[in-house]
Amino acid sequence: MVDKKLGGAGLRGQSAGETKLCTVGKSGTGLTYCGYDVSDLADNATFEEVAFLLFNGELPNQAQLDAYKAELRQMRDLPQALKEVLQRIPKDAHPMDVMRTGCSFLGNLEPETDFSEQNRAANRLLAAFPAIMTYWYRYSHQGIEIDCVTDEDSIGGHFLKLLTGNTPSELHRRVIDVSLILYAEHEFNASTFTARVCASTLSDMFSCITGAIGSLRGPLHGGANEAAMDMIQTFKSPEDAKIQMAGMLERKEKIMGFGHAVYRTTDPRNVIIKRWSEKLAQEFGDTSLYDISVACEEYMWDTKKLFCNADFFHASAYHFMGIPTKLFTPIFVCSRLTGWAAHVMEQRDNNRIIRPSADYIGPEPRKVAPIAKR
Amino acid sequence: MVDKKLGGAGLRGQSAGETKLCTVGKSGTGLTYCGYDVSDLADNATFEEVAFLLFNGELPNQAQLDAYKAELRQMRDLPQALKEVLQRIPKDAHPMDVMRTGCSFLGNLEPETDFSEQNRAANRLLAAFPAIMTYWYRYSHQGIEIDCVTDEDSIGGHFLKLLTGNTPSELHRRVIDVSLILYAEHEFNASTFTARVCASTLSDMFSCITGAIGSLRGPLHGGANEAAMDMIQTFKSPEDAKIQMAGMLERKEKIMGFGHAVYRTTDPRNVIIKRWSEKLAQEFGDTSLYDISVACEEYMWDTKKLFCNADFFHASAYHFMGIPTKLFTPIFVCSRLTGWAAHVMEQRDNNRIIRPSADYIGPEPRKVAPIAKR
Repeated sequence: MVDKKLGGAGLRGQSAGETKLCTVGKSGTGLTYCGYDVSDLADNATFEEVAFLLFNGELPNQAQLDAYKAELRQMRDLPQALKEVLQRIPKDAHPMDVMRTGCSFLGNLEPETDFSEQNRAANRLLAAFPAIMTYWYRYSHQGIEIDCVTDEDSIGGHFLKLLTGNTPSELHRRVIDVSLILYAEHEFNASTFTARVCASTLSDMFSCITGAIGSLRGPLHGGANEAAMDMIQTFKSPEDAKIQMAGMLERKEKIMGFGHAVYRTTDPRNVIIKRWSEKLAQEFGDTSLYDISVACEEYMWDTKKLFCNADFFHASAYHFMGIPTKLFTPIFVCSRLTGWAAHVMEQRDNNRIIRPSADYIGPEPRKVAPIAKR
Repeated sequence: MVDKKLGGAGLRGQSAGETKLCTVGKSGTGLTYCGYDVSDLADNATFEEVAFLLFNGELPNQAQLDAYKAELRQMRDLPQALKEVLQRIPKDAHPMDVMRTGCSFLGNLEPETDFSEQNRAANRLLAAFPAIMTYWYRYSHQGIEIDCVTDEDSIGGHFLKLLTGNTPSELHRRVIDVSLILYAEHEFNASTFTARVCASTLSDMFSCITGAIGSLRGPLHGGANEAAMDMIQTFKSPEDAKIQMAGMLERKEKIMGFGHAVYRTTDPRNVIIKRWSEKLAQEFGDTSLYDISVACEEYMWDTKKLFCNADFFHASAYHFMGIPTKLFTPIFVCSRLTGWAAHVMEQRDNNRIIRPSADYIGPEPRKVAPIAKR
């Protein structure tokens, strides 16, 4: 077998398989899930409809959606053993380590023993992730053992109620729902590719999702909205933002939330979340964080021709809803889980184990010397 | 950016990067770690020397080895919280789910917060994995809370003592050590590639190893020695083995432990573990399982020109040492961890995020229909 040298490191621009789930940056469409433009979905569908779409290839009708949401609502509570595990994770743990461990542990209690259970396993995680995140967060940070069941209709509303203990406003419900739609799927990104490599050994759904969480944890992948939040919180005004950013650029510091590996002139998700961030700012009664964000956007475009990606206005949007910065990337998990699981199902449908080769650049053949002579 | 269509599914024969760690099936050498033939290492080194080699690129001298083993011995005990997590995993859980969860949970308690800690993190897992496996196993299956510290010098001996409670024989110590050497590293196999994809996002060591465990769990990857054991235990004699195998071949059933994706005529690890399995059989005083295994090897070669891979004689070898079949793949984890961690370190040394593309074969652009019209 002759190894073929790939053009770029990191398999960039190399096709590693086929998908029916997503296009990224195809001309004229931006980002599509199963043929639907993400902005069309954000305007005219809910996150549960998008999850159904990714798992089944088609949007649900009303009866299907009602049944699906009822199923998800019944799967929200956490087993007592999982709660006891989450209680043992320290307050200063990385929240993505909590998500990874919660997912992995649940796989011990409720394993996917046959691929006929793959939808059950994916839906269980979809229903349980908001509680895994908030149970640990509120127990470790506030000393409160929350009830993991709420009467909220949607996954997004359920998350907000678990987090705050209060019934969320209609606006907050809508924005978290849109956010979950925007982050749901993005083709063969590193975490999704991790899930597919794992799936290609015919491993179980919990292993695939656990691995994907671990990859999303990396600062080159998830976490850009947290980094953007950390930055804009240090800016006192729109004018200050421009001065500080000029200094960061001069010192060649990395500014998170701008540009994209695939998109060239705009991230189709930005305009959507920016609009909602503005609405939240007005409701919040203090628009300064939004105004600062807009100043950042203008400055980066004027000086660097860099555009905001999906992450940048998510920072202010989440902040206006009272979400702690350290939970931003775990919310990404709650959303992208749908894409990961859909890719696992797709990989299983037409599988070959993913096992590339490597170019060897190590030592020539040599003999083990007796230890006394080393 | 134009996507390049790859020749085969699963990236087969495609180079996904460079490595100094390993060659597989290069003519005349078989399997090498950092330039050393695996049979040379199995004859003239210990597993701790191989771990040191993979992490540092060179074999240790005596002083380095003594210091390294002392460091590993001090890292064996498990935190109380981890023990309490393992107590909450049911007896009928998949042992690989236990390993995955134990690794992930330890990452919450003792995170790798900076890459300068990567050796510490890898060594900690190397020292702790035998106890993670056996603590859960003996608690759930025998109701015994074991002491996770032993006075055994080597990782292999430590594992055997934890498992049985008895001091292992010199022969058993040597065979488990050889086994750990043979499984330590194998280039860009699916679990190692999982670890590298995760590492390429600059995620932490615990995430990378957790993901790799999830991939090794898949029946197309780890677990062949367990399947081989399940099969040979059903054979009553060498003659019966040939009759039963003929039936399996006729029914086109998959026979595990034979052939290989890369090796063409022999697996260089087989002759080594086969020799040790024979020695164990003689010590055991009943050679029938070994004799049956030899009959299987002869039959598959004579009828199918298929050779035993590393897994086949591992089944009888582990069995003679009293290791329960369900722990075979977790032992693989204890060994391959060294290769995984070495690849993580290598990926970090010259990183670009691993993000391939996909060929889109899904629906054409379409509009979201109102739910009442679906």
